[in-house]
Amino acid sequence: MKNVKKRLDIAMIGHGFMGRAHSNAIHQVGHFFDIPYDLCLKVICGRDLSNLEAMAAQWGWEETAGDWQSVVERKDIDVVDICTPNRFHAPIAVAAAQAGKIVLCEKPLAMNLEEAQIMAAAARNVPNLVWFNYRRVPAIALAKRLMNEGKLGKIYHYRATYLQSWGPDPVPEGAWRFNIAEAGSGAVGDLLSHSVDLALWLNGEVSEVSSVVQTFAPGREVDDAVLVLARFANGSIGTFEATRYAIGCRNRNCLEIHGSKGALRFDLENP
Amino acid sequence: MKNVKKRLDIAMIGHGFMGRAHSNAIHQVGHFFDIPYDLCLKVICGRDLSNLEAMAAQWGWEETAGDWQSVVERKDIDVVDICTPNRFHAPIAVAAAQAGKIVLCEKPLAMNLEEAQIMAAAARNVPNLVWFNYRRVPAIALAKRLMNEGKLGKIYHYRATYLQSWGPDPVPEGAWRFNIAEAGSGAVGDLLSHSVDLALWLNGEVSEVSSVVQTFAPGREVDDAVLVLARFANGSIGTFEATRYAIGCRNRNCLEIHGSKGALRFDLENP
Amino acid sequence: MKNVKKRLDIAMIGHGFMGRAHSNAIHQVGHFFDIPYDLCLKVICGRDLSNLEAMAAQWGWEETAGDWQSVVERKDIDVVDICTPNRFHAPIAVAAAQAGKIVLCEKPLAMNLEEAQIMAAAARNVPNLVWFNYRRVPAIALAKRLMNEGKLGKIYHYRATYLQSWGPDPVPEGAWRFNIAEAGSGAVGDLLSHSVDLALWLNGEVSEVSSVVQTFAPGREVDDAVLVLARFANGSIGTFEATRYAIGCRNRNCLEIHGSKGALRFDLENP
Amino acid sequence: MKNVKKRLDIAMIGHGFMGRAHSNAIHQVGHFFDIPYDLCLKVICGRDLSNLEAMAAQWGWEETAGDWQSVVERKDIDVVDICTPNRFHAPIAVAAAQAGKIVLCEKPLAMNLEEAQIMAAAARNVPNLVWFNYRRVPAIALAKRLMNEGKLGKIYHYRATYLQSWGPDPVPEGAWRFNIAEAGSGAVGDLLSHSVDLALWLNGEVSEVSSVVQTFAPGREVDDAVLVLARFANGSIGTFEATRYAIGCRNRNCLEIHGSKGALRFDLENP
Repeated sequence: MKNVKKRLDIAMIGHGFMGRAHSNAIHQVGHFFDIPYDLCLKVICGRDLSNLEAMAAQWGWEETAGDWQSVVERKDIDVVDICTPNRFHAPIAVAAAQAGKIVLCEKPLAMNLEEAQIMAAAARNVPNLVWFNYRRVPAIALAKRLMNEGKLGKIYHYRATYLQSWGPDPVPEGAWRFNIAEAGSGAVGDLLSHSVDLALWLNGEVSEVSSVVQTFAPGREVDDAVLVLARFANGSIGTFEATRYAIGCRNRNCLEIHGSKGALRFDLENP
Repeated sequence: MKNVKKRLDIAMIGHGFMGRAHSNAIHQVGHFFDIPYDLCLKVICGRDLSNLEAMAAQWGWEETAGDWQSVVERKDIDVVDICTPNRFHAPIAVAAAQAGKIVLCEKPLAMNLEEAQIMAAAARNVPNLVWFNYRRVPAIALAKRLMNEGKLGKIYHYRATYLQSWGPDPVPEGAWRFNIAEAGSGAVGDLLSHSVDLALWLNGEVSEVSSVVQTFAPGREVDDAVLVLARFANGSIGTFEATRYAIGCRNRNCLEIHGSKGALRFDLENP
Repeated sequence: MKNVKKRLDIAMIGHGFMGRAHSNAIHQVGHFFDIPYDLCLKVICGRDLSNLEAMAAQWGWEETAGDWQSVVERKDIDVVDICTPNRFHAPIAVAAAQAGKIVLCEKPLAMNLEEAQIMAAAARNVPNLVWFNYRRVPAIALAKRLMNEGKLGKIYHYRATYLQSWGPDPVPEGAWRFNIAEAGSGAVGDLLSHSVDLALWLNGEVSEVSSVVQTFAPGREVDDAVLVLARFANGSIGTFEATRYAIGCRNRNCLEIHGSKGALRFDLENP
Repeated sequence: MKNVKKRLDIAMIGHGFMGRAHSNAIHQVGHFFDIPYDLCLKVICGRDLSNLEAMAAQWGWEETAGDWQSVVERKDIDVVDICTPNRFHAPIAVAAAQAGKIVLCEKPLAMNLEEAQIMAAAARNVPNLVWFNYRRVPAIALAKRLMNEGKLGKIYHYRATYLQSWGPDPVPEGAWRFNIAEAGSGAVGDLLSHSVDLALWLNGEVSEVSSVVQTFAPGREVDDAVLVLARFANGSIGTFEATRYAIGCRNRNCLEIHGSKGALRFDLENP
């Protein structure tokens, strides 16, 4: 069998938990889906060089690099995958887009609306995506189709909870997630962003919101929890809750939708 | 064994679903708990006389009556139990309290805050209660004790959903629950009142709220659903949802509480 | 409304846990179902006279008696309800049937097959029942109808577990349930009898069985657990497990049926 | 980082569903665990050459081959992984062991006890394993440790169900699983073998068994379902059920253990 697939050379910027998750995805996707590309793990880029070498060896990246600016401009790179702390999303994405690369960016997309708009403008002419992975869960993809086909009828209620419990744990040295300048937000960007993306995708635009943001840990710069009430343009109403202080729930991502013809419930994560 | 229990003669005003539930409770309580009273089902009072006779026969009420005003003033009545449509709660409760009766009143207590304050003032000197039955569910009583003893630690999250699905059903002739003048509200008084009572009882005062009230049925006078965000005085935050349009949930009353030392979940109703 | 119901005077023999359960049932049935009888709690009969008086007072029995022989022959008694330890089931049932009474008997029906056959012969001409209450659970009644109508298709598998955990608990003074002469068996009569009754009722005759009976408690006279494999006459195969040593399951009575057109699962008890 | 890992060249015999599962495992294991080997997907061997090429391309096997006899004798092969229909397990395993290879064999190990004994003798001097993957599920590994440490106390009950529902589906052309000469058995080898392996591993030797084997499909050569009662050497008793006719359960592999100090439940598969 002649292999006529186009080769895509990937540069990954960042090498933490999400870096490993994406490395895994790049290795696995061709085994389970018939894709028209050969994905090549070309270069992984990060600040902590000793960890970077170990990770490159474990996950099969060909090269390592310490400087993202030069990496995103390399002629031999087709794709830039951004898994860094949130504050680097915008500069890397804009530079990569300007260099004509395919841009893949972790969520939350940006530190604020202005950054997001700049990124969107820069990436207008290159293929790009934000890693909202839950859209591709088969059950969610089916829900999307059912809702598009009107199988749930008129939607009345939308209810999303994303509950984690590690908020009170000791903060590791150098943890960027609690640093407002690095992370931009806490549960809002980390957890609520997933729930809001699914809501917009499945149930359409939100017309009104009211919310409560709460920080429980003394002195913490970012939010620990957020609650939202929403009215959707389709006439339904919804509640959202995202928190790192739901003791008892390690990682519970749950979604419920009630329409005039039926209801759906998803336990997207429930350990 | 000499029976030295005090006899309490009860008048029930109203004879619908809750009238049957209370009749059952009056018959049963002495079988399962050691109470110092002999409860006597003396008179049941209602507007629909043919149904009233049948109900009196089925549930063992000694007499029937059509006029609550004279019933609540009868010398031989000790207790007035109010199971009428909401708009009669206040006049009956005030009259019964002024006649020195023990007053038991269904929820929601009143049509509005002003009525409730008048009722509270009138009943100041008589034993009285509102039928918030969930407080007496053994698991809730245990939760109350655990929370009072600090076993859950500092409370972070409170989450209550009361979901029913009969909102879109055809409205029966003469249904008072959709009539604003008879019911005062819809899901707010009928369902949310239970959730709010439990929240105040278990988790203390609410300091701030934001809410959405929604009517889905065209032309309906009362709310079909209500969403609430709350901050509690103890520093926790909460969400409440009560609805008659949660297709798929006949009667789901669920409560979750997360504290620093543990979490509780109750499926108070879940068919 | 003229009351034209026939009065049935009931004598209950036995006054333990099941005596209370039946007293409750007799009080309640007319409130929830339209029955053609006035049920009268006439006399309760037992060996422990002080407890008997207290129970009669609490549950509204008119009289107490210490001698079942004379009670079952009283002209003013229509129904004899047998809630005694198992070894009295046969003599009381036979005597009551010979006196022409309606006979209601707790399970297990008898100490052995021979006794059961004598009882069946004696009761041939009087209304009678064994208290297999699960048949009347609405979901089971519906299952029966669905299976009769062929809605489950050809049945392949039947699986029943009745799991309790109190086997290792200290044995109270005078507990008849561990006494082979009083109880006849342990989990077999107490728990498996329910599962087998439902199986025969829902799935028809059993053609072959293999079983394991086990006593875990040293010196105990009766079985603590029983396992059964069965072939049914309809071609399906089944497993049964009944035990008082399923630590972690206070009272789990579960039933699953798989047929060619569908499957059913019932959690009849699951605390 | 200098790579000092020992290279192991693998030959896989068979290329069906389990061939894909093993290919995936070989690719993934080094990403998630720190292993001292470089695993090389050297050659995949099968009878259907066109499918074999496609699979080799999709899963990254270097070579393909049609003749297992010559493959298992290749000097450049270190490991032989057997994923063929059951009847080839013994000849391939014996040949590979005699050639000094590491032998990995799918379950059920053999067509019968005699074959298994011949295989065990042949593989005495080479590293070998049967693919009983559930032993490595983290929860099962923890259960094993807890039970070894006596944390569950004396074991009373063991209950395993492995329920699938595809038995009545149309049989694809050339399906070896229903052919007695190729498969040896049906649910017994395919499903029960997993349950029995876990039971022996977790709960020790079985001293007595009684079983029912059933074929529901007309004319089918292998069993569709099997039920087993067992006494274990440790004094506990158990039930096993494995079936392809549990309509409603696509793939439910459940295990429950009750001991004097606690109970465990595992839903190893439950879609």
